[in-house]
Amino acid sequence: MALVRVHNFSVSLDGFGTGEGQSAEQPFGHAGERLHGWFFGTRTFRSMHGEADGGGGVDEVFAAGWAHGIGAEIMGRNKFGPQRGPWEDHEWNGWWGSNPPFHTPVFVMTHHPRPSVEMEGGTTFHFVDAAPEEVLRRAKEAAGGLDVRIGGGVSVVREFLARDLIDEMHVVVVPILLGRGERLWDGLEGLEERFRIESTGSPSGVTHVVFSRLGR
Amino acid sequence: MALVRVHNFSVSLDGFGTGEGQSAEQPFGHAGERLHGWFFGTRTFRSMHGEADGGGGVDEVFAAGWAHGIGAEIMGRNKFGPQRGPWEDHEWNGWWGSNPPFHTPVFVMTHHPRPSVEMEGGTTFHFVDAAPEEVLRRAKEAAGGLDVRIGGGVSVVREFLARDLIDEMHVVVVPILLGRGERLWDGLEGLEERFRIESTGSPSGVTHVVFSRLGR
Repeated sequence: MALVRVHNFSVSLDGFGTGEGQSAEQPFGHAGERLHGWFFGTRTFRSMHGEADGGGGVDEVFAAGWAHGIGAEIMGRNKFGPQRGPWEDHEWNGWWGSNPPFHTPVFVMTHHPRPSVEMEGGTTFHFVDAAPEEVLRRAKEAAGGLDVRIGGGVSVVREFLARDLIDEMHVVVVPILLGRGERLWDGLEGLEERFRIESTGSPSGVTHVVFSRLGR
Repeated sequence: MALVRVHNFSVSLDGFGTGEGQSAEQPFGHAGERLHGWFFGTRTFRSMHGEADGGGGVDEVFAAGWAHGIGAEIMGRNKFGPQRGPWEDHEWNGWWGSNPPFHTPVFVMTHHPRPSVEMEGGTTFHFVDAAPEEVLRRAKEAAGGLDVRIGGGVSVVREFLARDLIDEMHVVVVPILLGRGERLWDGLEGLEERFRIESTGSPSGVTHVVFSRLGR
């Protein structure tokens, strides 16, 4: 049975998954890189950038779960790039470079569809204007029996949670207070009733919180 | 050097320290007892109620820190009782019973002073209408060289944090989403710059987060 999974999704102690003022230079707004410092040191992140170093330990074992058994990803438009409104430049293919780290079909949710783009390394971006259930149906089809990752950003994860479409979710609580930005937890009162929840502290200071859907 | 400390302060994963709709029957509003389940099972809590059972382990060692070396407590009026506005009943002395678990002077912050009340077991409630700095000055004097505990509720802890009056804080993040109530973290952007922060997961599912003031 294929699962719908969220991995390595960082939020501040006050629940913000991104800061205020997203731009091409600051994809996470005023949060900068502070939400992801725990990830940059891991072997998983370093190997994405062609480096063989990087730490093991609890942050690494959680980080590494990201890639295993995934056949497709769904992401919001903001994770693809900073543009808003109609596409003005079909040449710019997102801020993931010519060989994005996904290596699967990726479904970008947007109200402004455009032709699919095949990148190096097996990543193909598809642009879809549809409800989460329909996007998920297409992603599952493309995943060929493997799992589907919900890649974010904040509003995409929140919407899939609200519609009860997520089976497993790994959230990383980072001990900083952003004070402003986009909150992951809004509108999800009582979410814990649908999940078994386990928390693991890390020497890096973050807490790994894993949600596993009950009665799956 | 005497410290100002917060202990066993529970918040939901979405940052609420109390739910909506506080009343005499529901001191934490719609949160009920869900924020404090981790505490009820500890030896520390059980012994407060004259029972010799209760668990050890990580929840207990954190819970036990509550009482050590404390000479006075400061609390908000809502922690004393559910009344609002001028006191109408001087006979009712709070929802802590005739022998409250504090066993020290307790300073209740309120805009409606009333005479001090001496309870059994060493607890004396003083009612003060003053700024946090002045209440803290009086509490330190009463503590006779021991530490002062900031006992909550949410707005009291938040105000003492905002005024940089807290040296150590133990927050317990409970993996539930309350969705509404009073948020601990509002208005405290960048708090992490003043503290060393350490997180420890517990098999009970909660995470113990300890803030230690830098350069104290």
